[in-house]
Amino acid sequence: MTERIGFVGLGIMGQGMAHNLLKAGFPLIVWNRTASKAESLIKAGVQVAETPAQVAAQSDIIVVCVSDTPDVEAVLFGDNGLYETLRSGSLVIDCSTISPVATKEFAHKLTEKQATMLDAPISGGSEGAANGTLSIMVGGASADVERAMPVFEAMGKTITHVGDCGAGQTVKLVNQILVVNNMLGVAEALLFAQAGGVNLEKALQAVEAGAAGSWMLSNRAPQVVDRDWRPGFTIDLQQKDLRLVLEAADKFGTPIPSTSLIFQLYRTLQKQGLGGDGNHALVKALEHVAGFAINE
Amino acid sequence: MTERIGFVGLGIMGQGMAHNLLKAGFPLIVWNRTASKAESLIKAGVQVAETPAQVAAQSDIIVVCVSDTPDVEAVLFGDNGLYETLRSGSLVIDCSTISPVATKEFAHKLTEKQATMLDAPISGGSEGAANGTLSIMVGGASADVERAMPVFEAMGKTITHVGDCGAGQTVKLVNQILVVNNMLGVAEALLFAQAGGVNLEKALQAVEAGAAGSWMLSNRAPQVVDRDWRPGFTIDLQQKDLRLVLEAADKFGTPIPSTSLIFQLYRTLQKQGLGGDGNHALVKALEHVAGFAINE
Repeated sequence: MTERIGFVGLGIMGQGMAHNLLKAGFPLIVWNRTASKAESLIKAGVQVAETPAQVAAQSDIIVVCVSDTPDVEAVLFGDNGLYETLRSGSLVIDCSTISPVATKEFAHKLTEKQATMLDAPISGGSEGAANGTLSIMVGGASADVERAMPVFEAMGKTITHVGDCGAGQTVKLVNQILVVNNMLGVAEALLFAQAGGVNLEKALQAVEAGAAGSWMLSNRAPQVVDRDWRPGFTIDLQQKDLRLVLEAADKFGTPIPSTSLIFQLYRTLQKQGLGGDGNHALVKALEHVAGFAINE
Repeated sequence: MTERIGFVGLGIMGQGMAHNLLKAGFPLIVWNRTASKAESLIKAGVQVAETPAQVAAQSDIIVVCVSDTPDVEAVLFGDNGLYETLRSGSLVIDCSTISPVATKEFAHKLTEKQATMLDAPISGGSEGAANGTLSIMVGGASADVERAMPVFEAMGKTITHVGDCGAGQTVKLVNQILVVNNMLGVAEALLFAQAGGVNLEKALQAVEAGAAGSWMLSNRAPQVVDRDWRPGFTIDLQQKDLRLVLEAADKFGTPIPSTSLIFQLYRTLQKQGLGGDGNHALVKALEHVAGFAINE
């Protein structure tokens, strides 16, 4: 029997994901804080709930895709939250990127209703959400992962069960640590190259295929050279995720000297009103220090 | 007419490069500080000089592949150095990784003998040197690059003329900035992942194909997980190159906060006798801080 899917959070990611669930043939009921975001789904015949509680009352599996830890908490446990009407045997799939520690607390609380939870943060951007090519990092019990697999396969391409509850969030934060460190390397390297008087395109061409190579170098360094700050992922969201990294690293007691530095640099950019720039605009923080800019 | 090639510096890289020049059919005369390093070339019928000056007297193009700025200076301008007997119209190709600033000074001095110089630092390791698949980053005049191309093509695969004199060295240092920042990201990410209780192999599998991906992640993170410290590139050499980065950044007045941090971390490992470990052993500096180690 096809499970009934509830979907909470129709942001830039959630829109595409919900459409892909619909395409895959799942019966769907959705809710979003801003109701107008549901319009394209309503046109496609999807039922819209008035509260998260109404979603939970009518669903077997509920996908949550909101921004931050407090948003997930509100959707789950706030007034008219999912928890109020959650049915025994329900499965909540949280695709938001939130605290791994809070994730464990939330999952534990759901057991009171004989419901289970998977943390399943995503990467791949709005394009990946629209095309159903997201990478999904899943934490939780194997039986739940197996049950959720048709749902994951409708939304994503690379689905990795990385461990128990919270592990998906931890791996998403691992992903972000790597992304921002690779970007800081790109920023230092580009400023150094320009100060040294070399042609930036040729420098990139000379190094990108070797040991210096990275996704950020190949995809974001050319954007920096063109001073194209359109976001694949915004500084505001990157900053939010790095805050989660710092909180978790604090909890774990593990050293992240460079990621901490990057958090500070992003924070200064955010304070200057650049939170809507792409995360490759990290280079601007160093440009401000350097007193000169790439290709300006 | 085939140009006569001199080769100075038969270290782990130079050996393979000289053999490839021989295979390509160039008449070859070699010199090395430690004469025994020339044995395999002597067996292959190569002429061995007693001094760099003797090499310069009999060569049209002289390839230099030694360790650091003072080594290049000694080979060029020391007693019995190349400079003493350098013939008008000779071309010196310096494949060492040295200071971009010193490179310009050296090239300028060679003009007194109507000789020219290319800086052509290499990457790709001893395997790339042996197989003739090095990446070569070339700085200097276009006419000299054109003249040197058959020599480069005998030794390397990706040959990029990145700019004027010194630009090859600057781009090599750009390469090193990227390599070490990507590695610090890997180190912070692995410790974070382990502290968060996730399976490291699965975490790597989940993130390496996406925006977090890098050559260092794909090639060195698995070595870290296996605690396999065999060097692709040693800490001693990495440290030497980062010292050049810091010197040049000082000269340029450009900010490299993270690379500076990494310099310090490598320096502490070197001081502890770990200079022969691969550069991925950077993670050990964070392990010492963390008080726990990856997979131990």
